[in-house]
Amino acid sequence: MKRVHPPFTQLIKQLPATVPFVPPEALERQTGQPIRLRLGANESDFGVSPLAKEAMRRALKEVSWYGDSENDALRTALAHIHGVRKEEIVIGSGIDDLLELAVRTFVEPGVPVVTSLGSYPTFQFHVTGFGGQLHFVPYCEWKNDLEALVEKAREVDARLLYLANPDNPTGTWHSADDVARLIEALPPRCVLILDEAYIEFAPPSAHLPIQGDHPQVIRMRTFSKAYGMAGARIGYAIACEETISAFDKVRLHFGVNRIAQAGALASLQDPDFVRDVVNAVNEGKKEYEAMAEELGWRAIPSATNFVAIDVGDADRARRIVDDLLKMGIFIRMPGVSPLNRSIRVTVGKEEHRKQLAEALKKVADRIR
Amino acid sequence: MKRVHPPFTQLIKQLPATVPFVPPEALERQTGQPIRLRLGANESDFGVSPLAKEAMRRALKEVSWYGDSENDALRTALAHIHGVRKEEIVIGSGIDDLLELAVRTFVEPGVPVVTSLGSYPTFQFHVTGFGGQLHFVPYCEWKNDLEALVEKAREVDARLLYLANPDNPTGTWHSADDVARLIEALPPRCVLILDEAYIEFAPPSAHLPIQGDHPQVIRMRTFSKAYGMAGARIGYAIACEETISAFDKVRLHFGVNRIAQAGALASLQDPDFVRDVVNAVNEGKKEYEAMAEELGWRAIPSATNFVAIDVGDADRARRIVDDLLKMGIFIRMPGVSPLNRSIRVTVGKEEHRKQLAEALKKVADRIR
Repeated sequence: MKRVHPPFTQLIKQLPATVPFVPPEALERQTGQPIRLRLGANESDFGVSPLAKEAMRRALKEVSWYGDSENDALRTALAHIHGVRKEEIVIGSGIDDLLELAVRTFVEPGVPVVTSLGSYPTFQFHVTGFGGQLHFVPYCEWKNDLEALVEKAREVDARLLYLANPDNPTGTWHSADDVARLIEALPPRCVLILDEAYIEFAPPSAHLPIQGDHPQVIRMRTFSKAYGMAGARIGYAIACEETISAFDKVRLHFGVNRIAQAGALASLQDPDFVRDVVNAVNEGKKEYEAMAEELGWRAIPSATNFVAIDVGDADRARRIVDDLLKMGIFIRMPGVSPLNRSIRVTVGKEEHRKQLAEALKKVADRIR
Repeated sequence: MKRVHPPFTQLIKQLPATVPFVPPEALERQTGQPIRLRLGANESDFGVSPLAKEAMRRALKEVSWYGDSENDALRTALAHIHGVRKEEIVIGSGIDDLLELAVRTFVEPGVPVVTSLGSYPTFQFHVTGFGGQLHFVPYCEWKNDLEALVEKAREVDARLLYLANPDNPTGTWHSADDVARLIEALPPRCVLILDEAYIEFAPPSAHLPIQGDHPQVIRMRTFSKAYGMAGARIGYAIACEETISAFDKVRLHFGVNRIAQAGALASLQDPDFVRDVVNAVNEGKKEYEAMAEELGWRAIPSATNFVAIDVGDADRARRIVDDLLKMGIFIRMPGVSPLNRSIRVTVGKEEHRKQLAEALKKVADRIR
């Protein structure tokens, strides 16, 4: 038989073989060592609302049925909560899916896109995957540099500007007023993707009012963090109807898991649960800050469910991540300088924080 | 505030606002009438394996964790079953997701793609969504015309040829020998997407041996049909390692639901369940054939979990679908001529078949 190379597109041929993140399961396979503590992917250590769990259990009875491709019940509930129209909402299999959709809708080969140097790798993966040209702006003291981002967007005529607020991987945040000013200053052909995966953990001053019909803003939210449903893969975006209609032209209409739909809808009926999670996380963050100080490092103030701890240099950060992994503890660190002089640790439950603190102390003693 | 239209890509601007399928939930919303019998989307009426259900129930405890982005356990099990290497397998959120991935990998604007006129709308949706040029070959007596498909692929220099075997929406099938001949005859730059969503329902003679390293064939399988997990959104593709590696450059790595992963893996340990489903469906198909004959119509022989019934003309088919919907019964019909002179009915459980038969008899009496 003739062996012919499959005729991939030009773009695919040129792409590097990288993945945004190595999963903890792969680390287990690589090291042969089971992970006993998962604090590396900012998965919630506080579970899901009992209402959501019960709804998902019930929904298992209907697992043979495709989910509603219009996600109508969930969009209706979200529209009510956010004071927007359901035509301004799209549901996806998590923010990763929605980022791909947004990139596909706005980015063709050569299109300039602006973000911070060290921002969410999966966003960058999608931009590269559709041939976009990434332009980076350095963080300023662990924070996204809003003025420089807009300046860069103007300079390169960017079609997309990506900002996570609160930020990942630093945990820092900007006030709603600052973000509003950034939106005002956007060049006319530039759309802001405002990734608010961690917004539930942010102070009230960081909550920008939602304007569903703004043509230049796409808000992204998820059930993966405060709602504790990362494994279910469900999130949403709010944008003007014209943008949502464009998404509908290409999105995977039957892509969302039916059980996830049921769980997300039920979650929304349990705001107390989310409030309790946020309180518990806030308590944990204080502990992490004290722990970092005790070890001679500095916790970066965080408005998320994780804390980035500045340990001084990248080699030390790498050593800590590797040593913890050998002890069965999974954390991560940012991939690029200068953020990579930090480790990023998810806020766990009390017993998990204790296990982490003990392990981290051992590692710190060893590397001194 | 200045209202600027968002700067969509050229491709997005040109795309029509269509969706591949209207979900039954949307029909309920449109008609205000609840659907009491879902026999339109070829969802399994026979549920999931008890092992899968139990695995999914247990996996709910870990819903806060992302699924393994490498899907290693499932790929390992599938590699063993199919006698291929796990590097030759990719997992996706159902075949729809994998079709999008394959199209994205092989199709850029203007690239010719060949399929049958009236084949799976979601495949066509993805080809159009990436700017591909669809070339159609008419069905021949309700069957894909394999020789004409290859002929057309050669004529237009197609990069992809899509074939569902067994076929949807007709239910017809070709022998493995016929498909092997088609593969032999593929022009060198053309890749065959062999969609085997319904293969479990096909006779042994239709099961083409799997050759994992064939550079021109992508096999697609799903847990949505015989395994009864449509709502979980999980399926897989088998292709040569080079193609799978290309998929890895752009796929949504953390896109698959963790509970679906657990359910799919457990399903594989229960081949008896699938065998029982297939037997029950075969019994149901015989009933449908007798029912069609009684009503003066003809059931097209089917190797799937549904039956296409030739009712003579498109207006009659439309009338039947609409009238059944008014009675709370959801079925579908093909969208294009000449297939649209048929209705497509999923094989349900015995009591559901009885309900359908009664309703269909009433409708038939009315339209005579």
